[in-house]
Amino acid sequence: MIDTIAVVGATGAVGRIIVEMLLARKFPARRIKLLASERSAGKPMEVGGVSFDVEVLRPESFDGVAIAIGSTPDEVAAEFVPWAVARGTVVVDESGFFRMQPTVPLVIPEVNPGAIDTHTGIIASPNCSTTQMVMVMKPLHDAARVRRVIVSTYQAVSGGGLAASREMEQGTAAWLAGKGETKSVFPHLIAANLIPQIGSPRPGGSTSEELKMVYETRKILGDESIGVCATCVRVPVANCHSESILIETEKKLSVADVRRLLAAAPGIVVEDDLDAKLYPLPRTCSGSDDVFVGRIREDASSPTGIALWCVSDNLRKGAATNAVQIAEYLVAHPAKLSWERPAVRA
Amino acid sequence: MIDTIAVVGATGAVGRIIVEMLLARKFPARRIKLLASERSAGKPMEVGGVSFDVEVLRPESFDGVAIAIGSTPDEVAAEFVPWAVARGTVVVDESGFFRMQPTVPLVIPEVNPGAIDTHTGIIASPNCSTTQMVMVMKPLHDAARVRRVIVSTYQAVSGGGLAASREMEQGTAAWLAGKGETKSVFPHLIAANLIPQIGSPRPGGSTSEELKMVYETRKILGDESIGVCATCVRVPVANCHSESILIETEKKLSVADVRRLLAAAPGIVVEDDLDAKLYPLPRTCSGSDDVFVGRIREDASSPTGIALWCVSDNLRKGAATNAVQIAEYLVAHPAKLSWERPAVRA
Repeated sequence: MIDTIAVVGATGAVGRIIVEMLLARKFPARRIKLLASERSAGKPMEVGGVSFDVEVLRPESFDGVAIAIGSTPDEVAAEFVPWAVARGTVVVDESGFFRMQPTVPLVIPEVNPGAIDTHTGIIASPNCSTTQMVMVMKPLHDAARVRRVIVSTYQAVSGGGLAASREMEQGTAAWLAGKGETKSVFPHLIAANLIPQIGSPRPGGSTSEELKMVYETRKILGDESIGVCATCVRVPVANCHSESILIETEKKLSVADVRRLLAAAPGIVVEDDLDAKLYPLPRTCSGSDDVFVGRIREDASSPTGIALWCVSDNLRKGAATNAVQIAEYLVAHPAKLSWERPAVRA
Repeated sequence: MIDTIAVVGATGAVGRIIVEMLLARKFPARRIKLLASERSAGKPMEVGGVSFDVEVLRPESFDGVAIAIGSTPDEVAAEFVPWAVARGTVVVDESGFFRMQPTVPLVIPEVNPGAIDTHTGIIASPNCSTTQMVMVMKPLHDAARVRRVIVSTYQAVSGGGLAASREMEQGTAAWLAGKGETKSVFPHLIAANLIPQIGSPRPGGSTSEELKMVYETRKILGDESIGVCATCVRVPVANCHSESILIETEKKLSVADVRRLLAAAPGIVVEDDLDAKLYPLPRTCSGSDDVFVGRIREDASSPTGIALWCVSDNLRKGAATNAVQIAEYLVAHPAKLSWERPAVRA
């Protein structure tokens, strides 16, 4: 049991789910402290029948806080995380800002829980599109060594936050009515459309989201030799990211092997019966903490390729669930709530 | 100039566009004859300001018809095409029924026009998702020999016909209103959802649509050694299929090479400037006869891979345009309007 856990960015799409989840999972903390920017703080927020004050995020917010879970934009994380670490708070950070720093472990508890033990104040939670893919890669990597993965994503609007979801709903209503549509969150109209750009352009022609899938995957699996080709596309789906994944392994795995390995892996549900029209759909996976896999088949174009379809709730396992699992690990290993030297200077 | 061209399945989504296109392109025929099933025939149909009678499709419909363009389900094509061929009509068939028959050329005029010359009464037009991919593969195949292609599709509902488009619009309105949604065309709800199944299950775990992309690609390019891994997904987009494609060639091509080759290819438009947020979108490509390509970049996970994003109007170049182009070729080469022996027995 710890004294206080803080949720930073509590009023956002993921922040609210984190608070719900801490209540629902009876997180062993005496107090849940909600923090948000000046713009969002001040008003009380009701979650799961409980009314919370939302305090303004500032350095002193972390006095007496054992663990903070942050779900904020990168630039907010860059500012608040050092405040927290300087006060002895362990931060589980959802943002992209610290993920690739060598001293910061990047953790999916089902995949590399041991990395948590190496933290020096900050533990990063991966990008949503990375997490579900690496969850699927891990059992195959252990059994047959993954050499290469080719992924095309179908990413829901909820990944862009509450304003993105609103833009999709309002745009879709306007599209149906044949009225003028507007955009502010997305670079193009999202209603009945596809946008093959998530994040910002990077040298070489990839987007920042695509490169996250390359570098985060290698870091989490601890194997810099894995090749990743990612194409990230926003689709007019409310929630849950879907991915068409082709995995090439060193050792040949049969479809039966893959089904068996995935079905036995924690946090993965295999839904795979094409004859019965059974495969994961974003509408049906929404609200679940698991990663769903179907359409598992051999790739006839390579000696060891396995193609599959993977769907997961990007706000949950892709964000909130993963962070809460890391926080639960910390509470279960209280020695890990202190560390040798701070990861960053405050 | 020919006497009569018939459009079979004229009341369908593609049939109507074919008639519009014959008028707009001033197809050199004295008469356009519209044919449809008993259910759809009888009512006059207005296209481009012209009112057409729609006659019931029967064997005698093809008396005096030089060319017929068919856009019907497979089972209708299986029945009517022999009627037409027995009467000396050359059939340009959009259905999947004859595509893989060895004596039937499968043609994209920009890719393998010479195959038209080998016909014996039937010329097949490829599946919509295949056509746009092969259009992109062709110039790269000629320059550097394509060894393998990995494609994940994002296919619009219009490919399922008018009832499918209606189901998407009605379902989306119900979804927005929080009301009950129903389905009859698609195997699952399509509003704000993704369905990773197009067509029927096939041994090995692929769908019929995915296997079309394998076998039709090899036949059109005349190279059985090309490996194809296809995953076909229906998305809640009204019109235009999009594809995330990874092409591996024997000889290394740079991004600049690929851009130059594609920009010079007939029927292809390169829209590729990520910094300017320029890449093809289904909403903006709808209504065009071209195949649009963007997001061209090197795949760091293979020695010669090129990743790109391809969008095309599935009702036009994916169906109507391609068939009308074949018919135009036939009229321009009138010797090809007769042939040695019929392809099928009537």
